[in-house]
Amino acid sequence: MRERRERPEPIGDAARSHPLDVEVTHVKAVVYEKPFSVTVREVDDPQIQHPNDVIVRVTSSAICGSDLHMYEGRTAAEAGIVFGHENLGIIEEVGSGVTSLSEGDRVVMPFNVACGFCKNCLAGKTGFCLTVNPGFAGGAYGYVAMGPFLGGQAERVRVPYADFNCLKLPPGDEFETDFVLLADIFPTGYHGCELAQVSPGETVAVYGAGPVGLMAAYSALLRGAAKVFVVDRVPERLAKAEEIGAIPIDFTQGDPAEQIKEQTGGEGTDKGVDAVGYQAQAHDASHEEPAVVLNSLVETVRPTGMLGVPGLYVPSDPGAPDEHAKHGQLLVSIGRMFEKGQQMGTGQCNVKRYNRQLRDLIIAGRAKPSFVVSHELPLEEAPQAYEKFDKRIEGYTKVVLHPGHALAA
Amino acid sequence: MRERRERPEPIGDAARSHPLDVEVTHVKAVVYEKPFSVTVREVDDPQIQHPNDVIVRVTSSAICGSDLHMYEGRTAAEAGIVFGHENLGIIEEVGSGVTSLSEGDRVVMPFNVACGFCKNCLAGKTGFCLTVNPGFAGGAYGYVAMGPFLGGQAERVRVPYADFNCLKLPPGDEFETDFVLLADIFPTGYHGCELAQVSPGETVAVYGAGPVGLMAAYSALLRGAAKVFVVDRVPERLAKAEEIGAIPIDFTQGDPAEQIKEQTGGEGTDKGVDAVGYQAQAHDASHEEPAVVLNSLVETVRPTGMLGVPGLYVPSDPGAPDEHAKHGQLLVSIGRMFEKGQQMGTGQCNVKRYNRQLRDLIIAGRAKPSFVVSHELPLEEAPQAYEKFDKRIEGYTKVVLHPGHALAA
Amino acid sequence: MRERRERPEPIGDAARSHPLDVEVTHVKAVVYEKPFSVTVREVDDPQIQHPNDVIVRVTSSAICGSDLHMYEGRTAAEAGIVFGHENLGIIEEVGSGVTSLSEGDRVVMPFNVACGFCKNCLAGKTGFCLTVNPGFAGGAYGYVAMGPFLGGQAERVRVPYADFNCLKLPPGDEFETDFVLLADIFPTGYHGCELAQVSPGETVAVYGAGPVGLMAAYSALLRGAAKVFVVDRVPERLAKAEEIGAIPIDFTQGDPAEQIKEQTGGEGTDKGVDAVGYQAQAHDASHEEPAVVLNSLVETVRPTGMLGVPGLYVPSDPGAPDEHAKHGQLLVSIGRMFEKGQQMGTGQCNVKRYNRQLRDLIIAGRAKPSFVVSHELPLEEAPQAYEKFDKRIEGYTKVVLHPGHALAA
Amino acid sequence: MRERRERPEPIGDAARSHPLDVEVTHVKAVVYEKPFSVTVREVDDPQIQHPNDVIVRVTSSAICGSDLHMYEGRTAAEAGIVFGHENLGIIEEVGSGVTSLSEGDRVVMPFNVACGFCKNCLAGKTGFCLTVNPGFAGGAYGYVAMGPFLGGQAERVRVPYADFNCLKLPPGDEFETDFVLLADIFPTGYHGCELAQVSPGETVAVYGAGPVGLMAAYSALLRGAAKVFVVDRVPERLAKAEEIGAIPIDFTQGDPAEQIKEQTGGEGTDKGVDAVGYQAQAHDASHEEPAVVLNSLVETVRPTGMLGVPGLYVPSDPGAPDEHAKHGQLLVSIGRMFEKGQQMGTGQCNVKRYNRQLRDLIIAGRAKPSFVVSHELPLEEAPQAYEKFDKRIEGYTKVVLHPGHALAA
Repeated sequence: MRERRERPEPIGDAARSHPLDVEVTHVKAVVYEKPFSVTVREVDDPQIQHPNDVIVRVTSSAICGSDLHMYEGRTAAEAGIVFGHENLGIIEEVGSGVTSLSEGDRVVMPFNVACGFCKNCLAGKTGFCLTVNPGFAGGAYGYVAMGPFLGGQAERVRVPYADFNCLKLPPGDEFETDFVLLADIFPTGYHGCELAQVSPGETVAVYGAGPVGLMAAYSALLRGAAKVFVVDRVPERLAKAEEIGAIPIDFTQGDPAEQIKEQTGGEGTDKGVDAVGYQAQAHDASHEEPAVVLNSLVETVRPTGMLGVPGLYVPSDPGAPDEHAKHGQLLVSIGRMFEKGQQMGTGQCNVKRYNRQLRDLIIAGRAKPSFVVSHELPLEEAPQAYEKFDKRIEGYTKVVLHPGHALAA
Repeated sequence: MRERRERPEPIGDAARSHPLDVEVTHVKAVVYEKPFSVTVREVDDPQIQHPNDVIVRVTSSAICGSDLHMYEGRTAAEAGIVFGHENLGIIEEVGSGVTSLSEGDRVVMPFNVACGFCKNCLAGKTGFCLTVNPGFAGGAYGYVAMGPFLGGQAERVRVPYADFNCLKLPPGDEFETDFVLLADIFPTGYHGCELAQVSPGETVAVYGAGPVGLMAAYSALLRGAAKVFVVDRVPERLAKAEEIGAIPIDFTQGDPAEQIKEQTGGEGTDKGVDAVGYQAQAHDASHEEPAVVLNSLVETVRPTGMLGVPGLYVPSDPGAPDEHAKHGQLLVSIGRMFEKGQQMGTGQCNVKRYNRQLRDLIIAGRAKPSFVVSHELPLEEAPQAYEKFDKRIEGYTKVVLHPGHALAA
Repeated sequence: MRERRERPEPIGDAARSHPLDVEVTHVKAVVYEKPFSVTVREVDDPQIQHPNDVIVRVTSSAICGSDLHMYEGRTAAEAGIVFGHENLGIIEEVGSGVTSLSEGDRVVMPFNVACGFCKNCLAGKTGFCLTVNPGFAGGAYGYVAMGPFLGGQAERVRVPYADFNCLKLPPGDEFETDFVLLADIFPTGYHGCELAQVSPGETVAVYGAGPVGLMAAYSALLRGAAKVFVVDRVPERLAKAEEIGAIPIDFTQGDPAEQIKEQTGGEGTDKGVDAVGYQAQAHDASHEEPAVVLNSLVETVRPTGMLGVPGLYVPSDPGAPDEHAKHGQLLVSIGRMFEKGQQMGTGQCNVKRYNRQLRDLIIAGRAKPSFVVSHELPLEEAPQAYEKFDKRIEGYTKVVLHPGHALAA
Repeated sequence: MRERRERPEPIGDAARSHPLDVEVTHVKAVVYEKPFSVTVREVDDPQIQHPNDVIVRVTSSAICGSDLHMYEGRTAAEAGIVFGHENLGIIEEVGSGVTSLSEGDRVVMPFNVACGFCKNCLAGKTGFCLTVNPGFAGGAYGYVAMGPFLGGQAERVRVPYADFNCLKLPPGDEFETDFVLLADIFPTGYHGCELAQVSPGETVAVYGAGPVGLMAAYSALLRGAAKVFVVDRVPERLAKAEEIGAIPIDFTQGDPAEQIKEQTGGEGTDKGVDAVGYQAQAHDASHEEPAVVLNSLVETVRPTGMLGVPGLYVPSDPGAPDEHAKHGQLLVSIGRMFEKGQQMGTGQCNVKRYNRQLRDLIIAGRAKPSFVVSHELPLEEAPQAYEKFDKRIEGYTKVVLHPGHALAA
């Protein structure tokens, strides 16, 4: 599959630093084949296509839970997509319009591709860029329906609007697995707290102790929360939550809202984060119940509280348990939410809005998000990594892939 | 029915300025009898019960759309409730603990009764006071389940925590019908805009052109919105909307979200206000469809937009069209809301937060909300007023009642 | 004087759409000669220098009060500078890296030149761009020390980072004199209100009824202020203030803070805007007293109030009345400000942050800022316009220049 | 000296739970005698004066740096004032109008006395209450010109508007020295960060490593700052700063702004806090230079940055080094501040706004501000404590006094 161009205009001279008639080189990449199957094979080497592009030699690219949606065949993804939207690497080529970047710069890219000048980007809503994926608000690398941008689980990746989309990192390879999390999950967890406006001294409930949930709990603590509850049922995840200073709540041991109310004087928490989304499990873990977490959150959070919802809800879900859910309509306790006067923020993270400050926390030694990384593997081992991560076996919770050149270095 | 006390402690000497053993005097009041029936009859004259109380001689008390919920028998309201939560009058008695008020002061009270010192009041969330209605967040005058506070559709009304709950007005009777709207619907409409963070130059869609919807549209314009769309199907209401500078959208003429998109370059509005709530009519106006407005709003508002929901949703609605709706669970387009990254604020208005500034706009001649008032009537005509307002006949849209003493003056 | 390049790198092929060896054409422009003298003469026609540039055929360019600082010789400006930072026109050439703009688009540019991707631009602080004017935070067209950007009081002007810096306008020439004010003074006046967080129902004092002061007062009213006081001493200016609904305060008739307190129940205003800056006149108008407005504002605004200071203060003023003022150090009533717990925001306007929403107010017919424009003149009459504007004679308060081609059209 | 009443009205029956004709009892208290002299002697036992009062048996009362202003005779304080505005204790008597408090409750009071219902209190600006100290915005216990409220360096203290002014604490004596800091310095340091809007990942410069400066630095870290610089010259203070994770800057070793710029890539910090105020020492520590810290802060903080100024500046300072400073007018680098587009917030802390959340951080074990407490002493030792604290000898940096009954317990 050839990607479609993100801009319809013909490419001017500016783009011809790599003329199209030269010999096409190739790079290795993780390519989607069919449900439950990815392969690592050679694809066309990414080229500068626009003066504002750069080409990055990838040193780290993480596998995201949302990659599994495609992997499991629950999306419209077709064979040939190169996966990977959590990318970090070294700049190798610089378009003629790029101002602030040079060859050799180490950079990490938000998973969202954004232009920097549309109405939404100007408002800091870079996850809803109106330019890069025409007809839709928002673009991303290596993801179905998110625009023509090849993923970075590959040796090289093209970055459009590079001045805007690259965040510079200190040279070298220090903090590599911390920094790669700046592409998505650390900011996404933080985003949950931002949507809920978590502030010092507050109590916070985070549903889900997967990587995003743990990042949300970690962010709540970084923001000065007094008490952070993390709800899940997997003992290893709950143990991780406890390690970072949160209070684990096992929802198989009783209604989580009740458990949390007991620990907050009957009141519930000031704020809540839904880091689970529509693939939520019923409390008895027997089947999917898409709105269970959202509704539990409404119960858990006290009147006037705020809900941050970075966990994914989708307008179309062919695999949903009922007709309405297939169209993204869920039975939400809106009556109770209104009675409690709650506010709710939703949507994909605007990574660009947070990644600089989170980077600086890492550099200063005040944040170390890599505690969620379970495996670092060569790019070649992506097929097995996807399989094990999808099955959540052998402790696969967060995998960072490194192309061969990075491992060599 | 005797009201229950809002505080369990015995009343100290302070409250004895009107000793309980003196002859009980009476006042006229609007009393709920049974579904579709209120009467005007004598009830016990309100007394100072606590040092922080004042007694207000009511000069104006408006009938609210939410009074009709009780009137129609769709709530648990029992016979004997004195109605009236939109109250304005003159202070006649002052408790010994009151600091800032004197006999003769003209004041308007928020419909919410609030203490001023609980966690929620301190945060400006006076609609969710934790003190005045134990076991629930929020109290109000003359309303089922909102605490022991008699309504003000009466000659006199007791106001607790008077320093906090009374807003002083200029003496005289100027702006009487403007000021009485400060008790509820002007701030409530404004609250919709505040929840949606309406700011200058934005486009706003308001669903509902009843009194609250009109106040929301009016508030949006006061806040500097560039274009305000108001959706309804009643020609008179739409005409009112147009008069104040809004753009009327008749939802019987086609999908309102589509109509508004056409007038916003296909994009939808920046912000939206739901001034309808759960008793929404289906687009063909044939039956109730509780989530239709909320879901239309999700469609109408552009990605990254914000929704203000002052329109009422309830956690329990015995008259609802289906089992889930009876428990306040509605099919909400949460998938689409998430995809668009929208934020939503809900809940009763915290009147205290806005009434001072809105009062000052009225005094300065910059706001004149009384354009929504259709009738001013003597208190005695309350029964007919309720009946006609409930049927929406003879142009009854917003009625202000005046007790006899006020009319005499 | 040739401008210095804003980027040190050699220009790649991308920039060669106008090769440097072709015949150089010329355009007419307003050029600074020496104190109190500008001329209109031919200068080199602006060229695309970078893939992200566009060239705009200017149809309107306004003269700003800050142009007079250079004109009067109170700055380090050298002969040869092309003036003009309030520019509007039609795009004629588009660099190869530009995405969102086409030939023929009508656009207005913020006076600040900004990159869109530095830390400050990302935070919406486009008046403090770290990229375009190396070594300084902020760039502008046609202004000494604000970078290498030629002014737009000319037939054509080059716009760097065009996707970011151009705001699209509806085609045609409607609202031309309203839209040109979006380049600077309308947003700058609005910025004063934003810094002071003016909100509905508040009282506001604006010092200065020049174009920026009037725009600040106008913006305060657009934002819903209840009462806006405007302080000046020129009767025509005060009359303009009154026309738009503000309350004129003539400071030659008595201490302005006292006059305003009298009209606010002794309290002072909620908010204040300093639209004068360091060239303030003493109350008796006999001499400059650089901090007099700032200190009057501290007196005028009530405790807990906020001060917006868009009026210019400079760190170096060779013409200042005393040694400290020459270095931008003024005797500020900081003790009183602290006692009152006031907050103060300062600095050049980040035009980009407001121009879109203000444009939409103009298009919707809800704002018409051109009431401040006193003269529209052909570009050729710039020398006389500067002279009369500098002397404030013949009613010269705000002049918009139109090059010949615009007049012809 | 008898205190003047804070309300002019006669006291009603409500206040007579302690009739005025009973035998007057006495309590021990720290009383100001003359410059450099306080004594501990018996004063009239505080009585309930108003239905909303409570009487608190003091268990801890801290000495504040601002007490030394009176102690040194640099204020208009007259003999007889009972000192003490940082008070914690157990409620012993409850006025008849008090709702939420009971005998035996352990409470800490903000140093500001506030009514809870005036315009400023409603806006959260409880440091500027318009009710409790007529003619001035703001009241406090035991402080000259701050109203008629006796201080709490005594066995008992009267608390007006008790529902509003008391913050409940867990029973017992755990965290006693942490909680007493909630009365002033912990919230005051936090207030500096709030005024500067310190957010996660930012760099912050705090001038002053006295108790408030240390609390500001500590608060910045609690809020997630990446790097916090603390400027002082006293080695012990700088060592304390380092202990909590801040970076010490000794201003005697070179210009502090330069030192900090060196450690921030030449840029300066995002935010700054002035925890010194007008009694600042010149860099060579040879004399007072009232604006030196403020102007250093302007240099230290980068363009677009924000300055929080909780450090005291006064409108009248008879002991100031020059005529202007005597009237609170200081030479401020306003030109530079404007050029950098900085914002500045000033004023006394609104303790009520923060004390609940900070309390919860202490209870949760996430904050332990008592590290600044150098001495805990019996009330009787107040004279020596003042003397040593004033001279800053023997490590006296923060003293908490305990009346005998508290020590016995």
